[in-house]
Amino acid sequence: MGPSTHAADITDLLQRIALDIAALPDEGAVAEYIPALARVAPRQFGIAVATVDGAVHRAGDADRAFSIQSISKLFALALALQREGEALWQRVGREPSGTPFNSLVLLERERGIPRNPFVNAGALVITDVLCRRYLQPERAVLEFIHRLLGRVGVGIDADVARSERQHSDRNAAIAHFMRSFGNLGSEVSALLDAYCAQCAIAMSCAELAQAALFLAADGEQPSHGRVLAAADARRLNALMLTCGAYDAAGDFAFRIGLPTKTGVGGGILAVVPGRMTLCAWSPRLDATGNSIAAAAAIERFTAETGVSIFR
Amino acid sequence: MGPSTHAADITDLLQRIALDIAALPDEGAVAEYIPALARVAPRQFGIAVATVDGAVHRAGDADRAFSIQSISKLFALALALQREGEALWQRVGREPSGTPFNSLVLLERERGIPRNPFVNAGALVITDVLCRRYLQPERAVLEFIHRLLGRVGVGIDADVARSERQHSDRNAAIAHFMRSFGNLGSEVSALLDAYCAQCAIAMSCAELAQAALFLAADGEQPSHGRVLAAADARRLNALMLTCGAYDAAGDFAFRIGLPTKTGVGGGILAVVPGRMTLCAWSPRLDATGNSIAAAAAIERFTAETGVSIFR
Amino acid sequence: MGPSTHAADITDLLQRIALDIAALPDEGAVAEYIPALARVAPRQFGIAVATVDGAVHRAGDADRAFSIQSISKLFALALALQREGEALWQRVGREPSGTPFNSLVLLERERGIPRNPFVNAGALVITDVLCRRYLQPERAVLEFIHRLLGRVGVGIDADVARSERQHSDRNAAIAHFMRSFGNLGSEVSALLDAYCAQCAIAMSCAELAQAALFLAADGEQPSHGRVLAAADARRLNALMLTCGAYDAAGDFAFRIGLPTKTGVGGGILAVVPGRMTLCAWSPRLDATGNSIAAAAAIERFTAETGVSIFR
Amino acid sequence: MGPSTHAADITDLLQRIALDIAALPDEGAVAEYIPALARVAPRQFGIAVATVDGAVHRAGDADRAFSIQSISKLFALALALQREGEALWQRVGREPSGTPFNSLVLLERERGIPRNPFVNAGALVITDVLCRRYLQPERAVLEFIHRLLGRVGVGIDADVARSERQHSDRNAAIAHFMRSFGNLGSEVSALLDAYCAQCAIAMSCAELAQAALFLAADGEQPSHGRVLAAADARRLNALMLTCGAYDAAGDFAFRIGLPTKTGVGGGILAVVPGRMTLCAWSPRLDATGNSIAAAAAIERFTAETGVSIFR
Repeated sequence: MGPSTHAADITDLLQRIALDIAALPDEGAVAEYIPALARVAPRQFGIAVATVDGAVHRAGDADRAFSIQSISKLFALALALQREGEALWQRVGREPSGTPFNSLVLLERERGIPRNPFVNAGALVITDVLCRRYLQPERAVLEFIHRLLGRVGVGIDADVARSERQHSDRNAAIAHFMRSFGNLGSEVSALLDAYCAQCAIAMSCAELAQAALFLAADGEQPSHGRVLAAADARRLNALMLTCGAYDAAGDFAFRIGLPTKTGVGGGILAVVPGRMTLCAWSPRLDATGNSIAAAAAIERFTAETGVSIFR
Repeated sequence: MGPSTHAADITDLLQRIALDIAALPDEGAVAEYIPALARVAPRQFGIAVATVDGAVHRAGDADRAFSIQSISKLFALALALQREGEALWQRVGREPSGTPFNSLVLLERERGIPRNPFVNAGALVITDVLCRRYLQPERAVLEFIHRLLGRVGVGIDADVARSERQHSDRNAAIAHFMRSFGNLGSEVSALLDAYCAQCAIAMSCAELAQAALFLAADGEQPSHGRVLAAADARRLNALMLTCGAYDAAGDFAFRIGLPTKTGVGGGILAVVPGRMTLCAWSPRLDATGNSIAAAAAIERFTAETGVSIFR
Repeated sequence: MGPSTHAADITDLLQRIALDIAALPDEGAVAEYIPALARVAPRQFGIAVATVDGAVHRAGDADRAFSIQSISKLFALALALQREGEALWQRVGREPSGTPFNSLVLLERERGIPRNPFVNAGALVITDVLCRRYLQPERAVLEFIHRLLGRVGVGIDADVARSERQHSDRNAAIAHFMRSFGNLGSEVSALLDAYCAQCAIAMSCAELAQAALFLAADGEQPSHGRVLAAADARRLNALMLTCGAYDAAGDFAFRIGLPTKTGVGGGILAVVPGRMTLCAWSPRLDATGNSIAAAAAIERFTAETGVSIFR
Repeated sequence: MGPSTHAADITDLLQRIALDIAALPDEGAVAEYIPALARVAPRQFGIAVATVDGAVHRAGDADRAFSIQSISKLFALALALQREGEALWQRVGREPSGTPFNSLVLLERERGIPRNPFVNAGALVITDVLCRRYLQPERAVLEFIHRLLGRVGVGIDADVARSERQHSDRNAAIAHFMRSFGNLGSEVSALLDAYCAQCAIAMSCAELAQAALFLAADGEQPSHGRVLAAADARRLNALMLTCGAYDAAGDFAFRIGLPTKTGVGGGILAVVPGRMTLCAWSPRLDATGNSIAAAAAIERFTAETGVSIFR
């Protein structure tokens, strides 16, 4: 990677990307499966980069909070891994699924063991793990994020959480299904309360990039100490790469070449191991549920800087 | 990565790994689906590292040729990509499959477009592409390997090719199935001749590591010039990471953290972008068709040297 | 059909069948998925025949009540059809499923429309229909059975209902799944209460044979009047034949040649259109969830009398 | 069944049905998967009834030969059953498939054992059985039909056979797939030659109704003697009912209430056990591959006469 990742250059590059994205034609649609998300103004765009030396670079709506949705699965998993260790992998796999994030087909074939912690089934198992350790798992995830940021202030959007809970039949189906195979101990209703609240955490691009910095820094959060063992941070990056973008993980690895985690709120978080984290956000999604403009912005960033884990 | 990747250290490390592997209990079984492979002596082990500066390090049976099987898909794909360019991706996807390498389930759902070029269906599409350009596609792959190595001498094991061709009903099913969807133009019998011959190429660990060096070197084969654009080399590495180890790709990414391509002959090729390639071989396979000892050896190498694309 | 179906002959035949069945080796296992069913004494056997002229023939434990389980789906469907008419078929299909009774695979492919009213998903849709018309759908089914029998006295086994409700995660998954596709309006918890209670109805072979007599009598219950149009009775028989025995429907049609409905309580109800109904019961089940001894008894009855809808 | 099935009434009824069908709007499309079938004039319609007393009734194009396609599976199965007996059922099941006739999904799950003899996979197993007994299995089927008719003259449409063979990739896939599981011994190319020739047999409605009469007559072909044991004739009828109409078998049982076997040439053969056989033909098909007008004609016949195996 050349001089373009110097501090001033990064800010400059983010500004140019934001301008380019603003000029793109409107494509895709805001997530409509819950009313509270469907109301979001579609043309917003933000991007932020946090480097391991502590700097944060911003462009566009980088400080506007949005619904992080599935990106929360990353923090819940890191917390569960911190607490549970290796035992976690008895209840959830680490293979890509080859089917949409909310499919039950593989879950039936594999008798209730989800493919990975980022499909909904796997994320529900992680929430189940947290339910056994915390009375309010969503608060535990929130406090974990506060510790990562070194400050409080991130919250749960109660409207989104409620709306999501009212439209959680598919997740209820998945949870009951895993219970029927003995791979879920919590009472389903409480589990879904926690899960929907966790998905409704609202954060900005800048906050997400900063909170995930330990993934770029061998498991250590700059200025706050060790979050995970270096090996576990590496493994989370591997999981993000193979499973982080729903059914488009292969395409993301191919186009972007970085570990990413996406959410239907329109956010995409990417990690450049050893260097930086990167978060872009824009609400319109493609058919696989990933933000079109955020993906384009990150692809452009990688093209211009040459950052890629694949060299 | 510390001093352990200095030249002398690498050779020393490979020797230690070879000793450790020799002490492992016998597990798994040699591929039995074709008689010619089932006859291979099971306790062999070799490992080799080729670095981008041109050095090659060896331990164990690093110079003994074995059947490269699916590792050949990598060379066939690189050659097809060199000739066909982007158009290739209209006929084959780049997503992990979530099902065994020879499954027809997804192929039916996705109307004849294979998930990626490393499942058998995808590799057959690549062979179909080569069939249109070459009278003898397997010779074209062989000559491509000769160019990569800068010398001739690699050959096709005719016994293995014949045995494989006699047991190719599953691949014939896949090929006819894709033809029924219009995604395969060649006559199936000729296609399978070429495919089985290509899989029967015999190479040693040292040869494989050297031949694949362009993947670690931004698409340029040291001392022989450009093979692929840097971006395409990156993309091949991404594909290897997400799809290179059959249905264990996620687990390999998690444990090993490097792009790999495995074969049922017992070989595993891994890439450390910017640094080196690594090939280990041992015939006994686990249930997913990957060599147990070769995977253990590569995992040990990454653990000791700290090389990982995920940092 | 010869003289063997004369009244005296029928009783005599049933007695012989009961003796033969008693001499069979013990095979299969009592349903164990809910504790209350697992406690049933396994060696019981009963058989009864009700003819359209009003006679009832019995052998063995023909008057002992057992848990009718999925046989209740037949009465719920008849009641729903009586009330809803043709509109019912917009929400549930009439094709065999080719997969186990509680699979979600086809339900996902067919976007929440169950294959037929006898797989669990379809039966839950029927209960949903009844939930809109009755405050207590299970009472409505019970009262429908009372009307068919011309007397009260049939009840719900509260232990079985409770036990079933406590182990209803798979059905909860199916119900939420259909809700997520918009094909289920009821609140899932209330729906499952009604469904589990309905399955826990306890009846004897003699009662079941009598209650279902309208299916053999062109839709008219002898001495109680019309239940369904003749065409609808015919169609119910057709559904029983193609879908009544879970994933063994084809085998039952082949071996027995009569419309049947089976339940995991060990009961099997069969219809000889125009002639009689037949119910056998014994708790041990085969791998497809059908009673081994009851199936053998009905097969013997058809072999000896030559009754078959296929001549 | 009332007086309407008297001889004069039957002819009269068939004439009225033919008139009604002629007045129907044009719907559906002629089978287009092979050119030779796509050329058939779409508006043709024929119907014939053969009664067990030897009479044949006709209306419309009842004597015009058409491509019997999958209806040939019925004769091949009867012949194989005659020769092979019960052993046949080790290699093919008798359950409905729940998926389209040419799907490979269930075949993969069930490791090469087809669901029933009427899906293509099952019919190919039957052809494989005949290939072991006859040098020219298609001639054996033809001669079997000649014996059933008591006269020669039925032939194979060579154009259709050739066209079908040229478009047989899907069936080649299925055959190789079963071979890979060890459930098919013949060389695939010869097997497909025989299979395509058998499907290209051309017969008229009147001939089909007469040839299949043994299914209505307890296994005995009137005036030609026993074809199958009565029990086997019953079982074939059962198989036709549960599996005879591709993925619409349940719907056909529901609407028509008779064992049927359909073909993409537009023919539908139905059996009224103990009474008669019925064949209608018209080339336009619905989405499930069944003739729209022929199904409507048979449905009308059953509605007017009240014939149904479900009473």
